[in-house]
Amino acid sequence: MPTGKLQVIPLGGLGEFGMNSMALRYNDVMIVIDAGMMFPDSELLGVDVVTPDFAYLKDNREMVRALILTHAHEDHIGGVPYLLSQMNIPVYGTPFTLAMAERRLEEHRLLKDADLNEVEPGDKIELGPFSVHFIRVTHSTVSCVALAITTPLGVVLHTADFKIDQTPIDDEHFDLHAFAEYGKRGVLLLMSDSTNVERPGYSESEKAVRPRLEQIFASATRKLVFSCFSSSIHRIQQILDVAAKYDRKVALLGRSMLATTEISHDLGLLRIPDNLLLRPQDIMDTVPHRVCCIVSGTQGEPMSSLSRVAVDNHKNLSVKAGDTVVLSSRVIPGNEKPIGRMMNHFARRGADLIYGGGGPPVHVSGHGFREELTLILNLVRPKYFMPVHGEYLQLVRHAKLASHLEGNGLESTFIIENGESLVIDEKGARKGEKINTGRICIDSGSLGDVVEDMVIRDRRHLAEDGFVIPVIAIEKATGQVQGLPEIISRGFVSLEESSELLPYAKQLVIKTLESSNAEERSDWGVMQEKIRTDLKRFLNKETQRRPLIVPVILEV
Amino acid sequence: MPTGKLQVIPLGGLGEFGMNSMALRYNDVMIVIDAGMMFPDSELLGVDVVTPDFAYLKDNREMVRALILTHAHEDHIGGVPYLLSQMNIPVYGTPFTLAMAERRLEEHRLLKDADLNEVEPGDKIELGPFSVHFIRVTHSTVSCVALAITTPLGVVLHTADFKIDQTPIDDEHFDLHAFAEYGKRGVLLLMSDSTNVERPGYSESEKAVRPRLEQIFASATRKLVFSCFSSSIHRIQQILDVAAKYDRKVALLGRSMLATTEISHDLGLLRIPDNLLLRPQDIMDTVPHRVCCIVSGTQGEPMSSLSRVAVDNHKNLSVKAGDTVVLSSRVIPGNEKPIGRMMNHFARRGADLIYGGGGPPVHVSGHGFREELTLILNLVRPKYFMPVHGEYLQLVRHAKLASHLEGNGLESTFIIENGESLVIDEKGARKGEKINTGRICIDSGSLGDVVEDMVIRDRRHLAEDGFVIPVIAIEKATGQVQGLPEIISRGFVSLEESSELLPYAKQLVIKTLESSNAEERSDWGVMQEKIRTDLKRFLNKETQRRPLIVPVILEV
Repeated sequence: MPTGKLQVIPLGGLGEFGMNSMALRYNDVMIVIDAGMMFPDSELLGVDVVTPDFAYLKDNREMVRALILTHAHEDHIGGVPYLLSQMNIPVYGTPFTLAMAERRLEEHRLLKDADLNEVEPGDKIELGPFSVHFIRVTHSTVSCVALAITTPLGVVLHTADFKIDQTPIDDEHFDLHAFAEYGKRGVLLLMSDSTNVERPGYSESEKAVRPRLEQIFASATRKLVFSCFSSSIHRIQQILDVAAKYDRKVALLGRSMLATTEISHDLGLLRIPDNLLLRPQDIMDTVPHRVCCIVSGTQGEPMSSLSRVAVDNHKNLSVKAGDTVVLSSRVIPGNEKPIGRMMNHFARRGADLIYGGGGPPVHVSGHGFREELTLILNLVRPKYFMPVHGEYLQLVRHAKLASHLEGNGLESTFIIENGESLVIDEKGARKGEKINTGRICIDSGSLGDVVEDMVIRDRRHLAEDGFVIPVIAIEKATGQVQGLPEIISRGFVSLEESSELLPYAKQLVIKTLESSNAEERSDWGVMQEKIRTDLKRFLNKETQRRPLIVPVILEV
Repeated sequence: MPTGKLQVIPLGGLGEFGMNSMALRYNDVMIVIDAGMMFPDSELLGVDVVTPDFAYLKDNREMVRALILTHAHEDHIGGVPYLLSQMNIPVYGTPFTLAMAERRLEEHRLLKDADLNEVEPGDKIELGPFSVHFIRVTHSTVSCVALAITTPLGVVLHTADFKIDQTPIDDEHFDLHAFAEYGKRGVLLLMSDSTNVERPGYSESEKAVRPRLEQIFASATRKLVFSCFSSSIHRIQQILDVAAKYDRKVALLGRSMLATTEISHDLGLLRIPDNLLLRPQDIMDTVPHRVCCIVSGTQGEPMSSLSRVAVDNHKNLSVKAGDTVVLSSRVIPGNEKPIGRMMNHFARRGADLIYGGGGPPVHVSGHGFREELTLILNLVRPKYFMPVHGEYLQLVRHAKLASHLEGNGLESTFIIENGESLVIDEKGARKGEKINTGRICIDSGSLGDVVEDMVIRDRRHLAEDGFVIPVIAIEKATGQVQGLPEIISRGFVSLEESSELLPYAKQLVIKTLESSNAEERSDWGVMQEKIRTDLKRFLNKETQRRPLIVPVILEV
């Protein structure tokens, strides 16, 4: 056995959902698998995008050979511009995945210099000690791959996101044979998607949605408005096909919907029947029962097309009584309220609403359920197993799911979270050193706009109880207080209440100033702290609130 | 037919979930049904409690005869202190409901003067032109009633919250006979709970949880930690019963869990087998497989007992590897993230986690599904129908569900939201005048701490982008600027960035001051606005952010 050292270093997506990224290192060569982003929790006030902190890669810049992308979802490619702005390494992915990444790079003016390399499922590329084999898997978007990475120590198999769809819409099947073949030859380490480990049985095929679509088209008497994730090319294909069958024209609305359908159509991944498309500006001039719209914005994002349609503020589409609105998507946890609000707006406009509920599904998951995960485990029979993509809970359950393989080739399972690492060498596998990882919060989507934790803490404080700022003018020469202190406050108490409260606060500041000795008053830092402490005690007693207090001493 | 006018005036809970309250008015006499609260959306920054605005009742104080409570959930009684602090009217409810309301009144020191009147299911009371009949219904807490209110114009039947549990734990059955009897005699208006109108079929009986509980107790080898809503007396009863059967002692943890179990036990509504209870301080000294804990805090509330146990910060209970944690409750939309975080903490401590999933249910809903709602509609066959308790979406679906009764006695269905009203008189039923309703946001649970919309708007602004406050000292006598302007900022940009940016901002303020003419400079209001506008443009251009800008001019 070679004496080298293999390290698996998760930079994001382990112990959390979203922003998947991972480095694979053999001695002094690294490749990076995916560079995703996540949308922030509501607690990250004013933050629009969160990406992994790529400091570890930056610190080892000369080792990093390439970025490999598994598929086109934001939690796998959304951080690409952020990574490439720090190190312009070659990127490998299928044409669709790269085209989707290009959009993001273009937005950040990084496309011109990017080194993008197309691969197809089945291809193998050599990157130093790594031989990377791209294996087709099925998922909720198109052109997705798993990775079999042969290293001097053995094969590392990374499933990326997958389900095992036995009847894929595009007839591009999950390459079970490749998984079986690797399993037969022996796999050192399997990393597999844990997203749906809590769901028993098998996920339904994308084709399971078709009967429901047929039902919806058969019974709708006026306009049909669908919303789905814009990367759900299979779903869009099915809606197009059923629309053609039921003789409805289709209008595509929303920036991302237009972009992804154009990209996938150009690549031959989306078939659009002739004369099917309707220009958005023609929607309202077409008889309602001949119209179908596919609109982006399933999660009730405030500026999305669907949200604007819901409040009748879209220039091309107005939903009327009797129209049907279909959410062909899942509710991402945390978005219940905005989606609910949006659906209530549609209800008020008299639309029929279809989402979830009984009968055939109007949406199916893109991630395999427990039996699919078990099938992969059994096909691959790895020596070491490391669940990926999930919170700690999902990782633990996936680890437990693999326990039946112990004694059947599986030596150890490792639950590794961001900031930890796995080491494999001639002595076997074990948890390795801690790695400096974390998250970067970005405002407004511009790469430079990193929001620091300190700023977010202040915002949280301000959001809770507002601020109170006492301002005191002091004569530079004499150290004497000039005029009366001023107190400014916002987000703290009502105007009425503050007009009662603040005069007392002013008196208190004056008292604090007067009761301080000459030495204290010669040190503005000390005086600011004294004023802050006294005011804090007073305001907390009077209001039970704890505003952010920032005393200002102005030298005049 | 009498010539009087009956008005139904929803004050909360119609077009939204939570804070149910409604006035029923006949000519110049009113009764109020329930006074609930809701927990705020995360957008209501710093707000702890939301109650209906009772202004309409206050404006008609002399007409209001009584407050009738249907059951003890916070969305029906949580606003009682707030209402009674404005008008001390008599309150009617079952002993358990009143005891739960008493807790809240006590907290606000309103109990001493409260006029609380116990009623039992089956009782009838007269309140002016209203005769109120309390009818037992089944729900997820105990002692719940619907109301049949006989008015000079006919019977108004209000179901309140209900499910039709055919096998209730306490053998206290839903009084279907009373509903049938009123239906036979004729009901003018039915108001019925719309919560679960989207769920097909029948809800499962509370008893359906028993097999799962047995399973859990039979297979657990160490400590068992249950969490459920503290008002779920039936659930607690079942856990106690199964614990006794499996020879485990039970410790109750959490302020609300202790209070509700004590209240229900005192009223004979909760049977606690002898020698079953374990003092919290004895938990860790008892062999783990003889311990069962019931802990409040199912929603991951940060200060709740369960959250503290999750991070091993509870003085009496420490969860170890191999212990089992069971969430016997639903996830209230919006709480997914905190609950997920809590469960991940338990997973990291090595606990087995049970919540939802396949097999027999570990929780059942307290609200009837579609077939139960239909059964009530068919039993009552009202002349007018008005769905209650739900967002617009649920109200619309419930209205649709009733449409089969048209031609079978049902004349009209009304979807009435908060702020609207329904009028019934000799000419029939119709939408009435708009009513001034709304919500009151309360901070820290103290009645006086109303948070105004303006304050919340400021907090939202601060939460998004922080603040920037330029301070300028001006000599009172001459109007001359003294010294240099100062700029304070928090929650806007990082310290580093602000040390680059703010010197420019200072220069800009000086320029704005210098370029203003004498007339402008004599009006501080004008100067503040000019400074604000210039700074806003500059900062937005440099950072794409829009902090709250409050210029301060200090006279010295």
